[in-house]
Parts: sequence; structure tokens; C-alpha cells
Amino acid sequence: MTTPMMHTSPKARVTTPTDREIHIERIFAAPRERVWRAMTDPALVAQWWGRGNKIVIERMEVERGGHWRFVEHSPEGVHGFEGRYREVTPPERVVQTFEWDGMPGHVVIEHVTLEDLGDGRTKVTNVSLFHTTEERDGMLHSGMEGGLNESYAALDRVLASM
Amino acid sequence: MTTPMMHTSPKARVTTPTDREIHIERIFAAPRERVWRAMTDPALVAQWWGRGNKIVIERMEVERGGHWRFVEHSPEGVHGFEGRYREVTPPERVVQTFEWDGMPGHVVIEHVTLEDLGDGRTKVTNVSLFHTTEERDGMLHSGMEGGLNESYAALDRVLASM
Repeated sequence: MTTPMMHTSPKARVTTPTDREIHIERIFAAPRERVWRAMTDPALVAQWWGRGNKIVIERMEVERGGHWRFVEHSPEGVHGFEGRYREVTPPERVVQTFEWDGMPGHVVIEHVTLEDLGDGRTKVTNVSLFHTTEERDGMLHSGMEGGLNESYAALDRVLASM
Repeated sequence: MTTPMMHTSPKARVTTPTDREIHIERIFAAPRERVWRAMTDPALVAQWWGRGNKIVIERMEVERGGHWRFVEHSPEGVHGFEGRYREVTPPERVVQTFEWDGMPGHVVIEHVTLEDLGDGRTKVTNVSLFHTTEERDGMLHSGMEGGLNESYAALDRVLASM
């Protein structure tokens, strides 16, 4: 018998299909256009990306070749993240680079796909490709999965409020 | 019998040790400190990087985490290039990312090593790591090798003038 957990967000499904990739899947209870907006409108991104921490969005040029840079202000300190958009295809696909200031020059390619499930829900898939297995494993062991689930829970709340 | 080519710059040695790498070696007739300076001082870089084309150095923060961005003005058009420094260890090693505006979000990691040959010459090794074999092969077939040899010939002239 399973216990229903009405107030707990679902966990993302995290797998490692190859030795340089992380594959993440998560279903959101909102139509694709709304999820797209929450992921590409800076004012909305600032409400969930930082999992409750303040995010300063210094750049967010959501188009091919555009740059993004977010600075997270957490109790543990200030962390900058940045990258560039390789592909932006509304409302279904973004390919972008991701780099954390703490490891400059270590660049991840993120392929984010939004799939309309046809019942008002949207499946978001994020496939990250690293240059090396060591960088991939470093990300896996960084507490990424916990942070990701917190971000996605915050995104659930933003989607419900839109 | 070989024919000496007194007025021709030596060609760089270009190999592909793995399916995601390009390995480049070239010996320069100058001491390592001088080669280091020619490769890290923006005023000197502007004299050789563009192979005779005008280069505008918009950013060149030669330190860990610093960014660089060069814009080349050629008869064929304007091309932007940019990246970020992962490691800067004078006078022997720079690790940096490299990205061309024409293919935004396709990021190469360049490991540049300067080896003092002990006779007043310096061997420069540049190992580029790509996310995929397709991106590596795209670079190989882009005319990279010709452009590289032109840049290095221009660097020979800068080194001789310093």
C-alpha cells in the first residue's frame, strides 16, 4: 500500500544514459505554453530558479547566441552562473550552455525539451552533456539532485499561481 | 635531399589523438617568457591573432574566471569569438574555452602549454577538446589549419620584433 503524499512535490527522475550525460525528467501539472513562459520570462525565473534564494538576473537574452547570467544570493554566499543559448525553439526546446563561476571554463551543454502530454500536463526533459566523465560525476555528487528538486517544487508553485 | 625554405614559416603539426580532440604543436624561435607575453598581452595579440585582419579586443581578462572576446574584421565580414579562462599559470599554461558567434553554444576547451626547449626556442602545444566528434570534425574541415598557420606566421613576426 502506498501512502499518498498530497503536499510533497514529485521527484525528478535522474539517470546517466552515457558516461558523460545526466538525463533528468519531471512532469509538471501545467500546459506547455505556461511552463515555457515560466522558464523563459526573467521575472518568473527569478521566482523559482533560486529555490527561495534571491536571484539577480544580470542577463537573459533568450535567443540563439544570446547570453544569460544569474547571481544567486544564499546564506552560504554569492554564486554566479552563466551561459549562452545555442537554440531557442518556443515552446518546445532550448539548448544552452551552463557554467558555474566556482569552476570557470567547465561547460555543460543542456538540452531542455518540453513535451505536451495532451492532458494539461508537460514533461520537461533536461539532458546535460559534459566534456568529461569526471565533470559529470562532480556534478552528480555536488548535491545537484536535491537542489534540482527544490527548484522544481518552487516552479510547481509558480505554475500554480500563473 | 630536402630543399631549405628559408622564408617560409614552419607548419604546425596537427593530429587527432582521440575522436574528440585536436592536438597542435608548433616551435617558435623565441624564449618562453617572450612567447607568453605575445600570447597574453592584448596589444600584442591584436597584432597576430587576426592573420592581418583587424582585431578588436573587447575583453581579455587573463586570469582564472576572466572572460575574453575578440571581434575580427575581415573582407568576408565581422566574426566574434569569445570564451573564459579556466586556468592561467604563467609562463607555461593556459586553459580556456573557445566559442565562435557563428556556432553559439558549441564550446571547445583549449589546453595551451608553453615548453622551454632550453635553446632559446619554445614549443607551443594546443590540445582542443570538443563535446562531440561532429564538432571536432567540423572544426577540422573549416579551414582551421590554414588559418592557424597564418596566425602562427604572424606571431613569428611579432616575436622577432619584440
